[in-house]
Amino acid sequence: NIRNLAMERVAMTVMFPCKYASMGCELTLSHTDKVEHEDSCDFRPYVCPCPGAVCKWGGPLENVMAHLMSAHKSITTLQGEDIVFLATDINLPGAVDWVMMQSCFGHHFMLILEKQEKYEGHPQFFAVVQIIGSRKQAENFAYRLELNGMRRRLTYEATPRSIHEGVSTAIHNSDCLVFDPSIAQLFSDNGNLGINVTISTVSNL
Amino acid sequence: NIRNLAMERVAMTVMFPCKYASMGCELTLSHTDKVEHEDSCDFRPYVCPCPGAVCKWGGPLENVMAHLMSAHKSITTLQGEDIVFLATDINLPGAVDWVMMQSCFGHHFMLILEKQEKYEGHPQFFAVVQIIGSRKQAENFAYRLELNGMRRRLTYEATPRSIHEGVSTAIHNSDCLVFDPSIAQLFSDNGNLGINVTISTVSNL
Ligand SMILES: [Zn+2]
Ligand SMILES: [Zn+2]
Ligand SMILES: [Zn+2]
Ligand SMILES: [Zn+2]
Repeated sequence: NIRNLAMERVAMTVMFPCKYASMGCELTLSHTDKVEHEDSCDFRPYVCPCPGAVCKWGGPLENVMAHLMSAHKSITTLQGEDIVFLATDINLPGAVDWVMMQSCFGHHFMLILEKQEKYEGHPQFFAVVQIIGSRKQAENFAYRLELNGMRRRLTYEATPRSIHEGVSTAIHNSDCLVFDPSIAQLFSDNGNLGINVTISTVSNL
Repeated sequence: NIRNLAMERVAMTVMFPCKYASMGCELTLSHTDKVEHEDSCDFRPYVCPCPGAVCKWGGPLENVMAHLMSAHKSITTLQGEDIVFLATDINLPGAVDWVMMQSCFGHHFMLILEKQEKYEGHPQFFAVVQIIGSRKQAENFAYRLELNGMRRRLTYEATPRSIHEGVSTAIHNSDCLVFDPSIAQLFSDNGNLGINVTISTVSNL
């Protein structure tokens, strides 16, 4: 298929500006690199990181915290790299979200616990951490979620998601801490579940 | 209800021999203590600890290892407190068990990975460790199961079950390491899943 090969060669040499040029991105890319870049382009507007996608806010990264503090005042913030995320009334039926913020290392992290029925009749809990920051910033950190009690401990460690990618894919792929209601029951006290959250910095090799 | 109270008082003072007296138990107990004791009496015959309950063997604890070595020759044994339990072909459909033995601290532990559909259409993996020993012996140890890779780590720590109680209740209650096929996928390589298993001794406070 000679004609297509020729067209590809043309496409490789012609450079296009990034779709977010008007927002400040100065990159020009070949057609093949453009799509991949635009998905993670730092100038792509951020959307509100609150789970559930009820809020329709969008804007640049530096405005996200101001948005959260004005439009989502009810979200608690705790300072420190090692905190307890207390989810109350975990036995509430149906799909429920618990959200809180953690501030450390000069960054803000959003902790999310979601109760969801991916499989009908079998609700599961999904816990994940996202940084109010870019994917590049996310790479500098690791988070650790820990359920502890009754001589048992369940721990999950991973790189935070960036709010630029969001958490819905992670939850959909179970690429986070996943546990059944019976495990939540085991570690909870009076319907309240405490999740120990530790953020740490990682040296990128 | 005066008559029942009087009967209870009689029951409290009359002592009965343990049901397993003929097997060597020398205890005599009040009626109320008898049932609880017999469930965990060390003279109660042990049954074969292999999952699935296909094997009908029963006998005293000291004969369990000899039974396993003669009737279940295919089970691999690894020496050491820190080993890798490699489960091959985890994508096989249907209910599947993976079993291996780990020997350390002068004891034998059976590692079990079970793939089961507790909820139809949603298979899950359950991993648990049981000691070839009594409940009392189990209390001296802790096990740690770890899935590791792709900058993610999932860890579960608990007290081993005794083969006297078995693992079916633990699996039924999700009182073990539970994970979805998508998590198994994430940590596996070519359909093979390596679970790091560490046994340690605990000092009972
Ligand atoms: Zn761009
Ligand atoms: Zn919002
Ligand atoms: Zn007895
Ligand atoms: Zn057997």
